[in-house]
Amino acid sequence: MSLTIVGTVAYDGIETPFGKRERVLGGAAMYAALSASYLTATPGIISVVGDDFLDSDRAVLTDRGIDLEGVETVAGGKCFYWAGYYHANMNKRDTLVTDLNVLADFKPVVPASFQDSDSLLLGNLSPSVQLSVLDQFVTRPKFIALDTMNFWMDIALDELLEVIKRVDLLTINDEEAQQLSGIHNIHAAAKKILTMGPKFLIIKKGEHGAILYSADGPFAIPSYPVDSVCDPTGAGDTFAGGFMGYLDNEGSYDFAALKRSLAYATAMGSFNVEAFGPERLLELSAADISSRVDFLKAYTQF
Amino acid sequence: MSLTIVGTVAYDGIETPFGKRERVLGGAAMYAALSASYLTATPGIISVVGDDFLDSDRAVLTDRGIDLEGVETVAGGKCFYWAGYYHANMNKRDTLVTDLNVLADFKPVVPASFQDSDSLLLGNLSPSVQLSVLDQFVTRPKFIALDTMNFWMDIALDELLEVIKRVDLLTINDEEAQQLSGIHNIHAAAKKILTMGPKFLIIKKGEHGAILYSADGPFAIPSYPVDSVCDPTGAGDTFAGGFMGYLDNEGSYDFAALKRSLAYATAMGSFNVEAFGPERLLELSAADISSRVDFLKAYTQF
Repeated sequence: MSLTIVGTVAYDGIETPFGKRERVLGGAAMYAALSASYLTATPGIISVVGDDFLDSDRAVLTDRGIDLEGVETVAGGKCFYWAGYYHANMNKRDTLVTDLNVLADFKPVVPASFQDSDSLLLGNLSPSVQLSVLDQFVTRPKFIALDTMNFWMDIALDELLEVIKRVDLLTINDEEAQQLSGIHNIHAAAKKILTMGPKFLIIKKGEHGAILYSADGPFAIPSYPVDSVCDPTGAGDTFAGGFMGYLDNEGSYDFAALKRSLAYATAMGSFNVEAFGPERLLELSAADISSRVDFLKAYTQF
Repeated sequence: MSLTIVGTVAYDGIETPFGKRERVLGGAAMYAALSASYLTATPGIISVVGDDFLDSDRAVLTDRGIDLEGVETVAGGKCFYWAGYYHANMNKRDTLVTDLNVLADFKPVVPASFQDSDSLLLGNLSPSVQLSVLDQFVTRPKFIALDTMNFWMDIALDELLEVIKRVDLLTINDEEAQQLSGIHNIHAAAKKILTMGPKFLIIKKGEHGAILYSADGPFAIPSYPVDSVCDPTGAGDTFAGGFMGYLDNEGSYDFAALKRSLAYATAMGSFNVEAFGPERLLELSAADISSRVDFLKAYTQF
């Protein structure tokens, strides 16, 4: 195993203009791992679940070759549960329920068999939890990516800055880049963030695509043109998992490899929004994915 | 002469967080023609000015090789004047003054020497004025582009739909595409608009770039990453003029030519926002422009 993903495995309640699901498999690490599983061998998850985590859902992940040795099950505990409602344009959502449950006391443990990970994706968790994971690796993984959000900038900025110093790639959205840098223009914001430690920065712009910044210059990719978005839940995590899955399989971490990884990330994210929860991510073929990457190439080359 | 541009030549009062100009050369046709003048020979303008139009400003345009035979001067009249204020993030502006002046009775006349135009850019004017221009051409130009805005969709939709039927390319922004099609998703909106007549549609997304739609598929380009936007006035017109200037000079109007034109449009628009009014458009070199197009290629290829 070579890619380790730290983050939530959860159940979600989702309502969009296209329908409603009371309880579907969710969580950032779940989406990222499913996505990565199409692009690299046996990605591993470090997470925590309750004993309400269904064997059938565990099988969904292991059937995709995902290593769950790092997923602790808390006896008598319940899985993290989130429920939300998406408005008509899908850009705005209201959170209806956030039950942290077993996530409240999550103390991630890196299994011995995960120590040789080449790459590590630190999903959006508290910076102190992310630091504890970094500290447990005897040998630093060759490439470490960090996902975070404005919430941690508000309440744990100093610790977050410590984590940012220790990673190779930071992925945030445009508003978070503005907040982190204190600069409105996102290109200028990106330049400042690159002085904070990471060699690479991806600014995610949702339907407007993403931009990768580095010392070798920036690289922009549009989103894949999806005609009808059914459910955006997990799109960012699917994007991150696709990115790290492709990069891990390449085994090189230069700008050219990161650009290709961004195309795969974009393709994987686009599949995810086409159906509820992870439904679409469970039925893809290699040809589906390469066809979408080929489309992105034609879509952008002149 | 081969490219004719119909639209306003005006004076603007502009205030942005970077400063203020009381009265600078403005107008959609002025920006478009200046932009096109770097990419094709002797673009011509059809417009109207008052006798307050300065000889020095006339010289600014003729010095760039722009043909002003189609610009009528109304004795005793005053030029169209617009004044506006841009807020800190530059995405929102307040219009402070709109004095139509000579524009109120603008009846464009296509000069005989413009009849052999290969390409025509119908700037954002009332659909009836745009129709009168189309009707004056004895031989239809080979490629006709139309710029319009939500205002005309609100008050003159039927006439606008007539114009749209008769052009090759429509350029609008994302909100206007939603309004025109009645569809929220812009990719689905684009498909519907392509059934209304034009072979090509460009949806402009400002800082998020633009997408060209056609029967040959879509093509997306990001905006050029400008670190500091000084004044966005005329950026859309500069974009349109760059597009038509490059296309006119190519002399072919297929999808590949339009994709390249979109890269030049993007480059030209990016220069324009770097200084007040048309200042930056008066000091470019061919190397400046090709360097920015080369950048866009590297910025998007993987």
